Amino acid sequence: MYSQNPVFIPGPTNIPEAIRKACDIPTLDHRSPAFARMFKPAVAGVRRVLKMEEGEVIVLPSTGTGGWEAAITNTLSLGDTVLAARFGMFSHRWIDLCQRHGLNVQIIETPWGQGAPIDRIEAALKADTGGTIKAVLATHNETATGVRSDIAALRRAIDAAGHGAMLMVDGVSSIGSMPFEMTAWGVDIAVAGSQKGFMLPAGLAILGVSPKALAAMESATLPRTFFDFRDMLKSYAAGGYPYTPAVGLIAGLARSVEMLEEEGLDAVYARHHRLAEGVRRAVAAWGMRPCAASPELYSDTVTAVLVPEGCNGTDLVKLAADKYGMAFGVGLGEVAGKVFRIGHLGMLNDVMVLAGLATAEMCMADLGWPVRLGSGVAAAQEYYRGSAGTLALAAE
Amino acid sequence: MYSQNPVFIPGPTNIPEAIRKACDIPTLDHRSPAFARMFKPAVAGVRRVLKMEEGEVIVLPSTGTGGWEAAITNTLSLGDTVLAARFGMFSHRWIDLCQRHGLNVQIIETPWGQGAPIDRIEAALKADTGGTIKAVLATHNETATGVRSDIAALRRAIDAAGHGAMLMVDGVSSIGSMPFEMTAWGVDIAVAGSQKGFMLPAGLAILGVSPKALAAMESATLPRTFFDFRDMLKSYAAGGYPYTPAVGLIAGLARSVEMLEEEGLDAVYARHHRLAEGVRRAVAAWGMRPCAASPELYSDTVTAVLVPEGCNGTDLVKLAADKYGMAFGVGLGEVAGKVFRIGHLGMLNDVMVLAGLATAEMCMADLGWPVRLGSGVAAAQEYYRGSAGTLALAAE
Amino acid sequence: MYSQNPVFIPGPTNIPEAIRKACDIPTLDHRSPAFARMFKPAVAGVRRVLKMEEGEVIVLPSTGTGGWEAAITNTLSLGDTVLAARFGMFSHRWIDLCQRHGLNVQIIETPWGQGAPIDRIEAALKADTGGTIKAVLATHNETATGVRSDIAALRRAIDAAGHGAMLMVDGVSSIGSMPFEMTAWGVDIAVAGSQKGFMLPAGLAILGVSPKALAAMESATLPRTFFDFRDMLKSYAAGGYPYTPAVGLIAGLARSVEMLEEEGLDAVYARHHRLAEGVRRAVAAWGMRPCAASPELYSDTVTAVLVPEGCNGTDLVKLAADKYGMAFGVGLGEVAGKVFRIGHLGMLNDVMVLAGLATAEMCMADLGWPVRLGSGVAAAQEYYRGSAGTLALAAE
Amino acid sequence: MYSQNPVFIPGPTNIPEAIRKACDIPTLDHRSPAFARMFKPAVAGVRRVLKMEEGEVIVLPSTGTGGWEAAITNTLSLGDTVLAARFGMFSHRWIDLCQRHGLNVQIIETPWGQGAPIDRIEAALKADTGGTIKAVLATHNETATGVRSDIAALRRAIDAAGHGAMLMVDGVSSIGSMPFEMTAWGVDIAVAGSQKGFMLPAGLAILGVSPKALAAMESATLPRTFFDFRDMLKSYAAGGYPYTPAVGLIAGLARSVEMLEEEGLDAVYARHHRLAEGVRRAVAAWGMRPCAASPELYSDTVTAVLVPEGCNGTDLVKLAADKYGMAFGVGLGEVAGKVFRIGHLGMLNDVMVLAGLATAEMCMADLGWPVRLGSGVAAAQEYYRGSAGTLALAAE
Repeated sequence: MYSQNPVFIPGPTNIPEAIRKACDIPTLDHRSPAFARMFKPAVAGVRRVLKMEEGEVIVLPSTGTGGWEAAITNTLSLGDTVLAARFGMFSHRWIDLCQRHGLNVQIIETPWGQGAPIDRIEAALKADTGGTIKAVLATHNETATGVRSDIAALRRAIDAAGHGAMLMVDGVSSIGSMPFEMTAWGVDIAVAGSQKGFMLPAGLAILGVSPKALAAMESATLPRTFFDFRDMLKSYAAGGYPYTPAVGLIAGLARSVEMLEEEGLDAVYARHHRLAEGVRRAVAAWGMRPCAASPELYSDTVTAVLVPEGCNGTDLVKLAADKYGMAFGVGLGEVAGKVFRIGHLGMLNDVMVLAGLATAEMCMADLGWPVRLGSGVAAAQEYYRGSAGTLALAAE
Repeated sequence: MYSQNPVFIPGPTNIPEAIRKACDIPTLDHRSPAFARMFKPAVAGVRRVLKMEEGEVIVLPSTGTGGWEAAITNTLSLGDTVLAARFGMFSHRWIDLCQRHGLNVQIIETPWGQGAPIDRIEAALKADTGGTIKAVLATHNETATGVRSDIAALRRAIDAAGHGAMLMVDGVSSIGSMPFEMTAWGVDIAVAGSQKGFMLPAGLAILGVSPKALAAMESATLPRTFFDFRDMLKSYAAGGYPYTPAVGLIAGLARSVEMLEEEGLDAVYARHHRLAEGVRRAVAAWGMRPCAASPELYSDTVTAVLVPEGCNGTDLVKLAADKYGMAFGVGLGEVAGKVFRIGHLGMLNDVMVLAGLATAEMCMADLGWPVRLGSGVAAAQEYYRGSAGTLALAAE
Repeated sequence: MYSQNPVFIPGPTNIPEAIRKACDIPTLDHRSPAFARMFKPAVAGVRRVLKMEEGEVIVLPSTGTGGWEAAITNTLSLGDTVLAARFGMFSHRWIDLCQRHGLNVQIIETPWGQGAPIDRIEAALKADTGGTIKAVLATHNETATGVRSDIAALRRAIDAAGHGAMLMVDGVSSIGSMPFEMTAWGVDIAVAGSQKGFMLPAGLAILGVSPKALAAMESATLPRTFFDFRDMLKSYAAGGYPYTPAVGLIAGLARSVEMLEEEGLDAVYARHHRLAEGVRRAVAAWGMRPCAASPELYSDTVTAVLVPEGCNGTDLVKLAADKYGMAFGVGLGEVAGKVFRIGHLGMLNDVMVLAGLATAEMCMADLGWPVRLGSGVAAAQEYYRGSAGTLALAAE
Repeated sequence: MYSQNPVFIPGPTNIPEAIRKACDIPTLDHRSPAFARMFKPAVAGVRRVLKMEEGEVIVLPSTGTGGWEAAITNTLSLGDTVLAARFGMFSHRWIDLCQRHGLNVQIIETPWGQGAPIDRIEAALKADTGGTIKAVLATHNETATGVRSDIAALRRAIDAAGHGAMLMVDGVSSIGSMPFEMTAWGVDIAVAGSQKGFMLPAGLAILGVSPKALAAMESATLPRTFFDFRDMLKSYAAGGYPYTPAVGLIAGLARSVEMLEEEGLDAVYARHHRLAEGVRRAVAAWGMRPCAASPELYSDTVTAVLVPEGCNGTDLVKLAADKYGMAFGVGLGEVAGKVFRIGHLGMLNDVMVLAGLATAEMCMADLGWPVRLGSGVAAAQEYYRGSAGTLALAAE
């Protein structure tokens, strides 16, 4: 506890004081109007963050994994086919989940470091003349590789194929930190979590559901109760909840949206981009490069850094935790050892990022990696000091 | 906010300061050893509270409803038969959940106010000579009616029938507040929630799973991912979690068990019994009686008070909230309007209960119910002052 | 910690959640503009609560005792004469403080249970034709006896005497809970503390200082540094503080004033009066009476209850703490043992008071005092339920 | 609030979570045994931190300035002579305070950047053959210049002079962070504050008082009430306090001592030395040097950095706050503009210091100072990574 070191895992993020306080409340009767007064602005706020012009918001006392499960069990039936590209651990896990629930997943294997292959998806949809594919699943930000896919382009591809599949997007590590346009992009289900862009503790799966997905809900037969949107929507309409909600997190969600909007969503996205760019400059100064194959794929919430030949990214993560009390992310699956990950999302600023970069450098030196101390820090400093506006964020 | 009134809903309970502080922590890397250091004592503590001598503890970022779902989806397969008595809203909801997941529920309809009908269950099991029934479901404490069923007797009945069905118990509103003996009673799955006897915010489903249920897990085919025990147990073994855990609640759970054990589990149960008895004396002084049909059924965590003819319990609940800022529970389902409910579980003491009783009396007078102000309070005062030991609880 | 029992000491009061959170903040540079942004609204708010149309507010990291010391050391010189009535422990202590600092105190001894004797003060001032008396000291609310003195009348008496003495008022246990009119009453120094009507933890002495007192400051020669108004005012003008301020408490003070004004100062005073009246009805139902000699002297923030012959008020206070975890106030000085005190100020509502009254009754029964259980509670219930408006306070 | 940047002012320090939580408590009756149970370990702990083998600890709801005032008003009388060296803003202020309270201060003017001039003090004492000097005042750590004086040597000088003066030490910014030996050094009064080495919010003056000083207390005639040790000690003996204590801060003080002792006082001092050394390496890498004239004077809690000719230290402090949300200390008095100050005390670790250094560098570059980005960071990184032991501090 002799530390207030920021975390650099790609979520949960550092939590603002104001949100910690909003979450930490005495017990409140969740069947009382007081709960409704707290829940409604949270839901309305999520709607604005997702840029939803229609449809419904669902807030589940769960996590992103629960959000994935809710997305499919509420809209699909046993044996339905879904189309998904696999290019990282989190796209893989959603595919696995679908399979466990009895869906037929048409998988497009894609190299890790690439994003959703729009062309191949479009081709697959065009080939599906019988309309077998009920949904396209897309991981907006693949947290394992630090790759952002182009959801707008995916929508255009679906439309170009003239296919009626639903578009389901895992936005767990993008929403609230990078631009997201639910309605404009024609997303049918967007899945977010409390512990990323919303800067809350883990414990809420937050979903946007389009009218098309709501219609699918009526005929979907995959079993669900805890995650059932129908119970949720019926209770919400009465100002309540079908079971005991996570009241503190919901209070925090309302506060989170307030904070995001006080800063301005565009400013939030710009801040994430700027912080990410500083990290990337440091990575370049170290003589390394992101796992993401090309700049247009670079994620603004997490950078998976490819480590030099003969080095092991996991060693750095362990050393940083043990010796300096700092948390980075290890490589997962195919890129285990080959990368370490720097999360740069949620409550974060220049100073905090520099602390992370300086620590990573010490670990590299400790491990004998070929990196000069201060080199990455200097590159980020140069970028940050040149691009800093007036620091509205420090004001309160 | 000009209030620190206790709540008298039958959960979530009033939260001790120490638990609020344990839950409210900065972000911690859930893949680090620090998480394992926090999680292990929580799990070990739950084991002691459940009095488990074998089997595994599962902690899900969910609620009691999720716990019910996890219990069945991890141990049963489509079309399996379960036996359950319905005698209140919560036993009803578990039955409904089973049906939604494709189980065949053999329902023993039982009057609300009664507990699990041991004889009829035994008879049903004896009649099931083919062993069709895979599990017996029992609601230990029916929160809707304030009825406690006798789980030890139920075990004896199953044994008497020589039946091999698993015994699954909803202990959401009993565990941590009333005696529970997982191994001694031969319970195969026990479901608890964070927000009742553990005095935490809602957000955790806590399950005890017997070796027999673990064996059933291997062959069970109901679909599940978020709730899958196999992923949980595999990750726990490595000191981790299959997805992002609710770290703060888990820290709080460890602290909760410490507090329960500092007081002593038997002392905790005795306190709940004593507080409940005071409430019942007040109810009698008001000329009313509990919904529970006979004293051996009285719950020590919630009393559903049958209101006088011509009165409506829901009116009292609304008035208490609007006029005095105090939360009681309404009647649900069959007993809507006929009862109001006084939750008396979790962090609670004599003083807090008297505040609740005094407020209920004011509401009764306001509503013109035939009750003398101070009558119930005096009955409870007389009982509490005579039965109070040294107040160890006030010490710190 | 198994308790959230309110306290009934006459300060510190129960602290609202919102104020606890406002006080509990990370370190902030007290020489930065951020501090000034926090301090200014706190000072401006105090000005409104004191109803000051002129003069300055001083906030010291100290307590009421420090406020008394600051009041005299900043305005008086060695050997100066002040006039003060002694009618309780707190008026006594201020007199003692003056004497220790080398002032000549002209004391009007007054029976405990009475308030400031306006006639005798007026007579003393009229007799002081040489203008020897530099200040009249008055304890607005004598916390030891639960007596409120009439400061407006005192001002009229000073004016009637045509005397130029300053009027210094100890408002520690009145300001923020009972009407106070600094400018209208011609008060030259008003002393308040954070831990009473402002509902904060102890740690701030809060003073209003009139232009006349500010003028006296220039020539006053009593030594002071920590309490020196000149350093304070010079620093305040620059947005700072002469040494390290209690930043958290100042943040809390700003929040406190917001809360008082959200409720409305008149509504706050009315609430205190109503709660106090309920306590007095209970006292009467017990067959007892307040120490304050007559109704116009009754304090709305604390009632000192005269206990029956042969009973000892201190016994009740000890028993309440040991057996029920509840804090009342003992009798002090001349009334030690003869009274026990019920503080009813700050964050308090009907429900909380009833909890206190019910507990006091149990103690009385335990001690064999001639009181019927429930009697005082019923009297208060009857009054509260009849006089309760819509509970705006419970709303948030 | 979008920040968790550490502060680098030389106090108040960054506050550990555990201490914030210890301070943030509901109201507790300060006249109850519960208060005594909290206060006693705090006092006993302070005794161990000060290395007091005899004498008394006094805890005042005040600040360091109040501690200075308490030290002299409790032990000296009007017109008494004290000897003090002036070599910075804080030694100056204590001298000023003494003069305001009517003491005759024999001042040894000493260049800022130097420490207490032991030889000249010894000479002055030898010259005082009549024993006029009642006390020697020494600022252990001059926070304005980052200079630590040698108190053990000062004691030897007093002894060498055979002089009976009391030794009073301002340890506000040293105690709890650098070695202090009250009894071994023959210190008669040591003054500490809550907001430095104890890592608490401001609001407590903490004093160690030797038997010799306690004896002086009996005859001292400087007026005091709020600060009167006699009232304090009398109340402490009864488990109480002469007026309302700052209960939360006292609870925090007990926790603070626990944390210091869990880490080990020697380890705490070693940590401060190591962190300070890293800062000094960075300063050297920037081509600058500390204000402290020579290495044996270097403070381990604050470094006043002499800025290059033509640069203004205050500009850096302002820019850091405005642009990067980071707090450093400005130069005060004689060194205003000539230095900026980096506080490195209390809750602090390698990572936090590097964040501060990286930010200072950005400001230097922004201001056009002749410093290479990353240079100071690299020097500190090299030192920290080479000297880091196992990070017990990060463990929790």
